[in-house]
Amino acid sequence: MQSAQGLFEAIRDKGSFLCVGLDPDPEKIPEAFGTDVAGMEAFCLAMVEATLPYAVAYKPNLAFFEQYGAEGWAALERVVDGIPSDVLVIADAKRGDIGNTATRYARAMFEGLGADAVTVAPYMGRDSVEPFTAFRDRWTVLLALTSNPSAADFEFHGERPLYREVLRQAATFANADRLMFVVGATRPAMLAEVREEAPDAFLLVPGVGAQGGTVAAVAEHGLTEQCGLLVNSSRGILYAAGLGASREACLEASAEAAQALAQDMKRALSAKGLL
Amino acid sequence: MQSAQGLFEAIRDKGSFLCVGLDPDPEKIPEAFGTDVAGMEAFCLAMVEATLPYAVAYKPNLAFFEQYGAEGWAALERVVDGIPSDVLVIADAKRGDIGNTATRYARAMFEGLGADAVTVAPYMGRDSVEPFTAFRDRWTVLLALTSNPSAADFEFHGERPLYREVLRQAATFANADRLMFVVGATRPAMLAEVREEAPDAFLLVPGVGAQGGTVAAVAEHGLTEQCGLLVNSSRGILYAAGLGASREACLEASAEAAQALAQDMKRALSAKGLL
Repeated sequence: MQSAQGLFEAIRDKGSFLCVGLDPDPEKIPEAFGTDVAGMEAFCLAMVEATLPYAVAYKPNLAFFEQYGAEGWAALERVVDGIPSDVLVIADAKRGDIGNTATRYARAMFEGLGADAVTVAPYMGRDSVEPFTAFRDRWTVLLALTSNPSAADFEFHGERPLYREVLRQAATFANADRLMFVVGATRPAMLAEVREEAPDAFLLVPGVGAQGGTVAAVAEHGLTEQCGLLVNSSRGILYAAGLGASREACLEASAEAAQALAQDMKRALSAKGLL
Repeated sequence: MQSAQGLFEAIRDKGSFLCVGLDPDPEKIPEAFGTDVAGMEAFCLAMVEATLPYAVAYKPNLAFFEQYGAEGWAALERVVDGIPSDVLVIADAKRGDIGNTATRYARAMFEGLGADAVTVAPYMGRDSVEPFTAFRDRWTVLLALTSNPSAADFEFHGERPLYREVLRQAATFANADRLMFVVGATRPAMLAEVREEAPDAFLLVPGVGAQGGTVAAVAEHGLTEQCGLLVNSSRGILYAAGLGASREACLEASAEAAQALAQDMKRALSAKGLL
């Protein structure tokens, strides 16, 4: 696992702050891989192979594995094992529970799976976050402002919007330096507000591509002196080739999609004088 | 799975609204069962056997299974299979994600595991709840007011506390009649406030026993004309016998602990004229 400094160095090395989301949807995986659990696993590992020159992080989405029960978990374990150890693995699990239970989830992700980071929901408060940040050399990625339309239902609740309250209180949690925050790219102007509360933290930013956000807008409002951003793309990379594409065509299209995003990122890093 | 009416009938039949939480902690499971995954599974099934006369629901806590990865999931699947189909199985997973991902989690719980209900976190709003309530004949148990000390961090945020906002908005979600709500027993007086927002909904109430809540206080503020309560106890029942107890002594102590809670419940139901 990487410190913030180590992560920044990896970002400079690759000229990219791309996180590739591994959401293996059986309805979208090219038929060449097969649509069973073995095909899903092979597809994920092929995506890692294709995009590795452009990615500093991978984010497997646990739901797509859990839907296959124990068999899916075993595939997830092998996918995580297949990701080189010098890139960050973020288990996108959005777990949120307290005390002893939270510690078990943290063990499942950090020790069982061997992930470097896990996404966590803040609803239950400090008790549901600190069991994760207690793990040395691991990142806890707390939901703050998500990219979905109904984020406004509760994340904007209150005179000070809840997502700002989450960012503010999180700074006082134990081992707060092990926190990153999820902030959606669909609301790039709000990144400036997020930076008022969390000036230096790394932000994991979904919503680029299929959901409408752009790398340039995110970089404009979110970049810090140590980059401070991981921008995630899932569907736009994974399913760049059609359902009927061959394995080779699929790898090529996904590599190109990742490269295009990485080029935007390189431009943004250069403009900020970070390369 | 049971409708609200079916659940009420089961509650009347057993004179109990007890939910037994299955949190198999390897550090607390009596040694007679063994502390590996097989022992954990055997322990859970023994607990179901011991408490079945007094329980209308079981709530396996997924963290305790996930910490063993694929092996733990396989054990969880067998435990759920081993619970008689006429009692409710609530997968305590506290999942919270959106759209397609939420649908995958819902399938994992309702179809893969075969649970009748799943706990869900509301942070991301309507989009993160409706993919669960879309499942006919299944319950979605939304976190509202939890029983942990730091619940106050965010659940009380805003002039109208967030937990009330969650209850209020949830009533407008699609298939809202398939919702239950988690409301902690450690704040029984607040159950009256919860009932202002959710007068008829079933509430899943943790925090009785080890965490300090009592059945009488919960019943006083929370009972409806169709009971409307499932009160959960985990540690107080599972670990009623000591670490060194025999299998038989363990079953006996847990049955007694469940029976004692069920007797309190029967009294409360009778006092309300529901039996």
